[in-house]
Amino acid sequence: METYLDCIPCFLKQALEAARMAGADEKTQKTILDEISRAIPDIKLSSTPPEMGKTIHNLVKKITGKEDPYKEIKDKANKQALKLYPDLKAKVESAQDRLRMATELAIAGNIIDYGTKNSLDVDDELEKILRKEQEAIKHEKETLFNFRDFKESARKAKIIMYIADNVGETVFDLLLIEELKRNDPEKKIIYAVRERPIINDALKEDAHTSGIDKVAEVISSGSDIPGTIKEECSEDFRKNLEKSDIVISKGQGNFESFTDANKHVYYLFMAKCPIVAKDVGCKVGDIILLKKGD
Amino acid sequence: METYLDCIPCFLKQALEAARMAGADEKTQKTILDEISRAIPDIKLSSTPPEMGKTIHNLVKKITGKEDPYKEIKDKANKQALKLYPDLKAKVESAQDRLRMATELAIAGNIIDYGTKNSLDVDDELEKILRKEQEAIKHEKETLFNFRDFKESARKAKIIMYIADNVGETVFDLLLIEELKRNDPEKKIIYAVRERPIINDALKEDAHTSGIDKVAEVISSGSDIPGTIKEECSEDFRKNLEKSDIVISKGQGNFESFTDANKHVYYLFMAKCPIVAKDVGCKVGDIILLKKGD
Repeated sequence: METYLDCIPCFLKQALEAARMAGADEKTQKTILDEISRAIPDIKLSSTPPEMGKTIHNLVKKITGKEDPYKEIKDKANKQALKLYPDLKAKVESAQDRLRMATELAIAGNIIDYGTKNSLDVDDELEKILRKEQEAIKHEKETLFNFRDFKESARKAKIIMYIADNVGETVFDLLLIEELKRNDPEKKIIYAVRERPIINDALKEDAHTSGIDKVAEVISSGSDIPGTIKEECSEDFRKNLEKSDIVISKGQGNFESFTDANKHVYYLFMAKCPIVAKDVGCKVGDIILLKKGD
Repeated sequence: METYLDCIPCFLKQALEAARMAGADEKTQKTILDEISRAIPDIKLSSTPPEMGKTIHNLVKKITGKEDPYKEIKDKANKQALKLYPDLKAKVESAQDRLRMATELAIAGNIIDYGTKNSLDVDDELEKILRKEQEAIKHEKETLFNFRDFKESARKAKIIMYIADNVGETVFDLLLIEELKRNDPEKKIIYAVRERPIINDALKEDAHTSGIDKVAEVISSGSDIPGTIKEECSEDFRKNLEKSDIVISKGQGNFESFTDANKHVYYLFMAKCPIVAKDVGCKVGDIILLKKGD
């Protein structure tokens, strides 16, 4: 997805949030906003929003000296999501369509805002999201929640490239991967995470904390943007992508930046902003399982 | 009110909206965003948000060559509000507390978004706003909706400075002015509008279209920001302010920019953004009648 003009004010908003997350004082926050403002005239609208995300978050790191401003939030998200696992697993096991429940949960895991919530609240939020999801999916056009196609492709695929998004969500990904492999333990899942800390995106250590290394091969995409631009990923990632039959791309950042015209790519995410919603042709808050590519 | 860092992303959002309102194509919209971005490092946080508003809207005028981009919207607002007048008047006349109803209407008039709506929708929206207002006021702390004090001060005042805000709202102001003068036709109201077109703010011609010149002396504040900074207003405005007993200040822009420590100033507005709400100590959407000054 290209950068829309409406993304530009949002870049400054993200910069301010990230500066505060890094504990910057007001003067430093202003310095960061000024620097981003100076970079705005050079933004190429043909680039994807996560590329500017990288510029923003690298600047915040450089100015505040904090290499991983979201570390605390990420640790909390890991812990809270892991606590949820037994209940989530029970939910999948008692579902009429287990894969469908695991898929819905994997999207729900992308939405939860762990940062400011305790475990009980997270539990509560998850219930609300699932109710909303089921309500939304009922009214959704099949093209926007193409589960039938996904189920069929995922069943047939021997190798699946699974591009991760946020920490915490990784635990929900584990559930989906377990379901994908349930009737076909030989199915290979390659779970790609970011190379370096960027916002609250999952790294190798988070995939391990979630136990994903036990059911998938965990690799780094080589990316340090909050998304995945194929051309800028590591050779290892691209080789793995090449041999994969389908791709599961999680979250809005990957939707905005990842494309592969030669594969079936299934984007699982919630449309969190009006610009992405417009691009997809849905409403903000809609639950999306979108198929692209041949 | 000073400029908060959170206002800065919003300035770019406003610039984009204004550029589109002026009919700028995408390339021109980007040029405008770039220019505003270049101006951001020079923003003094001690200045009020409407001062940056002036910079933004002047730049849009300069680049697009459109002196009054909101002209069409304003004409529509004038017409729609005038159509509402007989019903609004009947509402005031049948109210238990006529002044209170006129005050609530005057705040409601500030909220209506005429731009995208037809007359029926505007009617509908007004009903909704009034219901919300009455609900909100019930739960409001008296300090945030200080009607009792306002009623008493307005009754005693011989001269009232009434600082206008938007076009359309002017018709609602007429109702309030008529009530203020009902038992005291000698009470003098000075109705101050902006000097030059800025966003959809009322000018002298709008006050005349609304019929306010029949019940008040219409003057220009000399201001061309979407607000009122006393020190930058015309000498005429300041002389009139000096001789006034109290001030009624309408809308968020005047709240953000107008202060007069020597007068009772009554700010009538809805808190439309989280930053103003935080400054006031209320929630977004709250209906405010705030007293300041000695």
